[in-house]
Amino acid sequence: MSQKEPQIIRNKQEMRNWSRSMRAQNKTIGLVPTMGYLHQGHLSLITEAQKHTQLTVVSIYINPGQFTINEDLSTYPSDFQGDINKLKSLPNGVDVVFNPQNLYDYGVETGELGVGNEGGVVCCLEGAGHETWVRVEKLEKGMCGKSRPVFFRGVATVVAKLFNIVEPDVAVFGKKDYQQWRVIRRMVRDLDFAVKVIGSELKREEDGLAMSSRNVHLSQQEREQALSISRALFEAKSAAKKGNSNCSKLRRSVIESIEAAGGKIDYVEIVDQESLETVEEIKDGVVVCVAAWFGKVRLIDNIEIDAS
Amino acid sequence: MSQKEPQIIRNKQEMRNWSRSMRAQNKTIGLVPTMGYLHQGHLSLITEAQKHTQLTVVSIYINPGQFTINEDLSTYPSDFQGDINKLKSLPNGVDVVFNPQNLYDYGVETGELGVGNEGGVVCCLEGAGHETWVRVEKLEKGMCGKSRPVFFRGVATVVAKLFNIVEPDVAVFGKKDYQQWRVIRRMVRDLDFAVKVIGSELKREEDGLAMSSRNVHLSQQEREQALSISRALFEAKSAAKKGNSNCSKLRRSVIESIEAAGGKIDYVEIVDQESLETVEEIKDGVVVCVAAWFGKVRLIDNIEIDAS
Repeated sequence: MSQKEPQIIRNKQEMRNWSRSMRAQNKTIGLVPTMGYLHQGHLSLITEAQKHTQLTVVSIYINPGQFTINEDLSTYPSDFQGDINKLKSLPNGVDVVFNPQNLYDYGVETGELGVGNEGGVVCCLEGAGHETWVRVEKLEKGMCGKSRPVFFRGVATVVAKLFNIVEPDVAVFGKKDYQQWRVIRRMVRDLDFAVKVIGSELKREEDGLAMSSRNVHLSQQEREQALSISRALFEAKSAAKKGNSNCSKLRRSVIESIEAAGGKIDYVEIVDQESLETVEEIKDGVVVCVAAWFGKVRLIDNIEIDAS
Repeated sequence: MSQKEPQIIRNKQEMRNWSRSMRAQNKTIGLVPTMGYLHQGHLSLITEAQKHTQLTVVSIYINPGQFTINEDLSTYPSDFQGDINKLKSLPNGVDVVFNPQNLYDYGVETGELGVGNEGGVVCCLEGAGHETWVRVEKLEKGMCGKSRPVFFRGVATVVAKLFNIVEPDVAVFGKKDYQQWRVIRRMVRDLDFAVKVIGSELKREEDGLAMSSRNVHLSQQEREQALSISRALFEAKSAAKKGNSNCSKLRRSVIESIEAAGGKIDYVEIVDQESLETVEEIKDGVVVCVAAWFGKVRLIDNIEIDAS
């Protein structure tokens, strides 16, 4: 229990000034970007960041750029004071919480549709005047990119913005959002960002459910049913380790388990850990990725299976 | 005549290390990105940069990412030693020439088509494995974006890379490439780059031809004919100043003058200086932009007409 109060910064320029003054003192800075409503998974990212740098910035910002108007931006959970209390409870606390009001407000009026038309899909920044998007063209396409058409361009763009504002040495992302983590790593490589990106292992509740801010929306019954995801993933890994290397069969069995529990599959894919391309036979490192709906809640989860 | 030898840096990390060591000494850095084959226009950008910062980096890199395989990458002129001599002739010289071999080499093998499919258009990075592109979705579309479909995403992307490698305080771009200048300014705003972008006025030869590295490919006769562009632009401005505010008529007259001289029009547009949207009547600041072919050489030029 540190009870260390983080400094709360809401202004971009003030944030950058803080980082530059710290760098001038030869301090290294770790960034953990979040959308708030923090849980143990987020806290583990912060603990990971603190292994690599002297100072830690946690950003709390629900990014409208990664939601379409049909997605759950308006109901995304939020509890700023609760988040601050959780951050204070960390052994080392954190140094700064960057909590901007609106990262897309450039102080200009734009009456018209500014952005967001992605093949007819309109994102939540409609009319904001923002028009620059970072596209990681291959990795953004499959899996979550299919059902969430503006998601990865929105994530890559806001992370590019955060990197340019916070100027961290290290940034930590959770491997729960596996595709997101790969997209960010590729972006950093391709755009030569001077940021080391670290992937932190997925955290589970004791019963196996992957930690997620969205879990709070699950009813008791849905939560029970949702355990089928992690169970199916563990079974797939175990089967693979026993020599069942046929991905088509493994995939079918994951789908059946989740559907039997009452889940509605968005996708189940077995892909290469690096390229995220579909694999037929388990050889090198693969990852089994799942997205499924329980009631109105869309959950994602994954498990890595390394070459044995 | 400074005859100051610039330090030549070819490695990304070495470049960034230089910038960081200078910043640690509280030095400010100006960047002038070029594709080499320098002329007086480039040198004026450098002189402009030196008004704002203590140190100057000139990058010389012919960016394959902004050419399709049907464009003139392979014949783009180049003279590295000549460029160095010109830089040495500047009163203050320059501090660093950043001349990377290949900004898209990430030390990985990729047998397949990596990038560049833009509605069937293949860019010169085919197979390089690079897949992240910065898109400035509205400003990239018209004018040069129509006839050069990968140009602005290639420019925005390589400039983002250069900003992340060089980490300059100021970057200077020529207003000869008017749309490019606007694209870069918008990218910097939208992605929160900590770089001040300055537009430097277009430079002309004594006879009025806009300075361009590509002018070297014009035959004597084509060069004569190409003077029709600047002549037509001056006439349009003069007509507008006299009260001829109908853009459709002004545009027609520019087209006719260039065609009469033997040029083949790519586009002539009269657009708002900020949004680059077509205007009907000259009211606030507009810019008349031209792209036209003389023989095998595509030339661009423009003239700003401010509200009187």
